[in-house]
Amino acid sequence: MSPVSSQTVLEQLKWRYAVKKFDPVRPISPEDWTVLEQSLVLSPSSFGLQPWRFVVITNPDTKSQLKPISYGQQQVVDASHVVVFAIRQNLSTDDIDKFVARTAEVHGKTVETLAGFRKVMVGTLHGGSINLNHWATLQVYIALGQFMAAAAMMGIDTCPMEGIVPAKYDALLGLNEQGYATAVACVAGYRATDDKYAQLPKVRFKTEDVVVRID
Amino acid sequence: MSPVSSQTVLEQLKWRYAVKKFDPVRPISPEDWTVLEQSLVLSPSSFGLQPWRFVVITNPDTKSQLKPISYGQQQVVDASHVVVFAIRQNLSTDDIDKFVARTAEVHGKTVETLAGFRKVMVGTLHGGSINLNHWATLQVYIALGQFMAAAAMMGIDTCPMEGIVPAKYDALLGLNEQGYATAVACVAGYRATDDKYAQLPKVRFKTEDVVVRID
Repeated sequence: MSPVSSQTVLEQLKWRYAVKKFDPVRPISPEDWTVLEQSLVLSPSSFGLQPWRFVVITNPDTKSQLKPISYGQQQVVDASHVVVFAIRQNLSTDDIDKFVARTAEVHGKTVETLAGFRKVMVGTLHGGSINLNHWATLQVYIALGQFMAAAAMMGIDTCPMEGIVPAKYDALLGLNEQGYATAVACVAGYRATDDKYAQLPKVRFKTEDVVVRID
Repeated sequence: MSPVSSQTVLEQLKWRYAVKKFDPVRPISPEDWTVLEQSLVLSPSSFGLQPWRFVVITNPDTKSQLKPISYGQQQVVDASHVVVFAIRQNLSTDDIDKFVARTAEVHGKTVETLAGFRKVMVGTLHGGSINLNHWATLQVYIALGQFMAAAAMMGIDTCPMEGIVPAKYDALLGLNEQGYATAVACVAGYRATDDKYAQLPKVRFKTEDVVVRID
């Protein structure tokens, strides 16, 4: 028996859409939010390195300040929670060491036994062929995908927002000073009953045009 | 009532890990696979443009050919399904037109009524400041995140694989000739009972170190 039926998974993924109008007076419960927050924390990433930080905003004043730097999109004001997905900028060997130390701690090993693992990570990421910030942004987008899917399962609406001014988000949230930079945002909450986008059929290319099978 | 309880969502996201050793004789059922395939098709993307193609491989011969171009990782052979996440290369105005035509078709409108929408997409993507292939890769990573989360809900294991040689995947699958390029792969199936990685506690930084709340 599957923990969640395939039918329910399909229904919820079809139910999801990028909500344009949120119910401004319906917050996500603290219990549900704790799980959504964990969907971010538990997200997979390359080597498990978690080159990210998630800034969660529920404060109305801060949300209002986000609106003009989000091309006026009302979602950042009305939705219950705004999540800013920020990358760790120019991930350093110190950052890798921090992760190695955390791995040693969680696995009850010494850092020395993880020297080989560290070497692979440093070689891959600092070998010269990887754009570190691009790589980190990719990882953050995995978290974005997992977050929206998890929310959909719980009947919680989202809207991913690339239409923001990342540099102004950084300035408002003081991210660069801490070595982080905004990649993308996503709001979460509940759709307004009169969001006209809720009625539009989802536009997808035909399955046979995007999925190619080699059996 | 939430369609899936927050507790179940949390449990399944904790249950998920990057499986290193798959059960080579346990396939994903066709019914379950259909839903996982739809998790790809239904994935959110910027403007809904779906700048991607998903190549699904179950053929043992093809899977064997993937192994040497995946740094010898046995997962591509043993897992039930391999999905290659490919981007549409250098997304053109023709591609945008194809999406506009599809939108018109699904929404029962004329292409002319979508001229404003088309203009915004062309302006944003071909305005000069966006690296189209980077942008497309980000979208594909949303699909990757949604795919792994959906699979986890259904009790199906996955392993995301950046450790592949994309150019050799492209050559094997004939992707470039069709205007696509491999971004990342992900295998899906069921963990072997003796995968030693299944027993290791998940390594995550403390929640307070990655989630910052502004209340």
